[in-house]
Amino acid sequence: MKIVLLGSGNVATNLAKALKANDEDVIQVYSPNVDHAKSLADLIGAEGINDLSDVEQDADLYIISVKDDAIESVAKSLKNVTGLVVHTSGTTDINILSSQVKQAGVFYPLQTFSKDKEVSFENVPLCIEANGEIQLSVLKNLAAKMSSEVYGLNGEKRKVLHLAAVFACNFPNHLYALANKILSQNGLDFDIIRPLIAETADKVMSNLPENVQTGPAIRADESTLSKHLSMLSDMPELQNIYQTLSNSIKLTLK
Amino acid sequence: MKIVLLGSGNVATNLAKALKANDEDVIQVYSPNVDHAKSLADLIGAEGINDLSDVEQDADLYIISVKDDAIESVAKSLKNVTGLVVHTSGTTDINILSSQVKQAGVFYPLQTFSKDKEVSFENVPLCIEANGEIQLSVLKNLAAKMSSEVYGLNGEKRKVLHLAAVFACNFPNHLYALANKILSQNGLDFDIIRPLIAETADKVMSNLPENVQTGPAIRADESTLSKHLSMLSDMPELQNIYQTLSNSIKLTLK
Repeated sequence: MKIVLLGSGNVATNLAKALKANDEDVIQVYSPNVDHAKSLADLIGAEGINDLSDVEQDADLYIISVKDDAIESVAKSLKNVTGLVVHTSGTTDINILSSQVKQAGVFYPLQTFSKDKEVSFENVPLCIEANGEIQLSVLKNLAAKMSSEVYGLNGEKRKVLHLAAVFACNFPNHLYALANKILSQNGLDFDIIRPLIAETADKVMSNLPENVQTGPAIRADESTLSKHLSMLSDMPELQNIYQTLSNSIKLTLK
Repeated sequence: MKIVLLGSGNVATNLAKALKANDEDVIQVYSPNVDHAKSLADLIGAEGINDLSDVEQDADLYIISVKDDAIESVAKSLKNVTGLVVHTSGTTDINILSSQVKQAGVFYPLQTFSKDKEVSFENVPLCIEANGEIQLSVLKNLAAKMSSEVYGLNGEKRKVLHLAAVFACNFPNHLYALANKILSQNGLDFDIIRPLIAETADKVMSNLPENVQTGPAIRADESTLSKHLSMLSDMPELQNIYQTLSNSIKLTLK
């Protein structure tokens, strides 16, 4: 398959590397920033372009991996291509593409990507959707080559998944950052808490989180809860978060 | 060293197994519940007792690993022992012991323990404190045999660490549970989100969390934030948590 990748952010970068590792033929990488386009294109032996009018018109697959609010304008520039056009967004409807092009789909990798840390795609859940059976099977074949976790999901379920991902990834990461804030203000290093973070995540690989909750709130240990709240008295924002989440944990006791 | 373990909960159980694995001589396990005492004692070849007056008086080390509010009464029963008496609590002052016994200390493993899942102690940070240099070196030697991560911390720093652990462990686990609530209400399995949880934790093993934050809040993506809030309109508790944590993430942008 001849593939054009439109985007050069975290998702696009990780996707480009995974496609390359699976011997897919990515022929072009587009980014409005020519340096970004070229540096990602160079990594995978593609051509880097920064003008949408330079996009090859006869590729088999166009992957739009840009910010959600830029998807539509990129899709408009692909009106005349005959290949399949997909986006990689968790929250964006497929209609934004199918109103512009004949063959439309979604190829949403449910993972948190950074440019610096390569992620093995083998275990990344790939959520796919398409506006036709043939298109869906093209995406299914590609996804199955890249990952053992392929899910056919409609837009509504994909949006639910994206919301759940905020709770399972973005919020926990922010809480790690708040833990580090507390530690560093008291001269303690983040290193000391890393094994705890690793074990907390590891525990739910084989258990449901509601069955392995620990800590003062689930024990209804009011003495520790009020000590902690008073330790946070000069950090009202953290105190509010502590109270909100502890109350929510206590609600599960009922 | 002859050791008496007082307690049979998650921490005591994991500690007992780790002591046994290091060929330490745990001679007795106490629990007010005789079945609990015996089943843990049997695991490690010790005597199970449920009466504090049966505690051997000439052991070298007494480890009190019971609920925080029960530590004092257990310590009182050890007034006449000559060995070193320690507790394993993150939040409890050493004075609760040193006011009762001559040799007192703290042996706090910073980890989340379940009875069913064995944790390798090698990477568990062991935080120690004692009321004398000799006592501290006894604990340091024991801890260094069990783990590569040994920290001498006073009570104030230990309490800070315990508070940070709530943010880094208890709260993230609850957010995993809320993610599962959202998924299951929409017929999606928790399995689909496990790789994301694993990667989110893995990412901060080599990065600081504040440098790898992702998601709509850190992008100030108001369109996605308001879509998510409206998806949670029939779950006001989750909506409140979403708003509180997103606001906190946005504060880091300033």
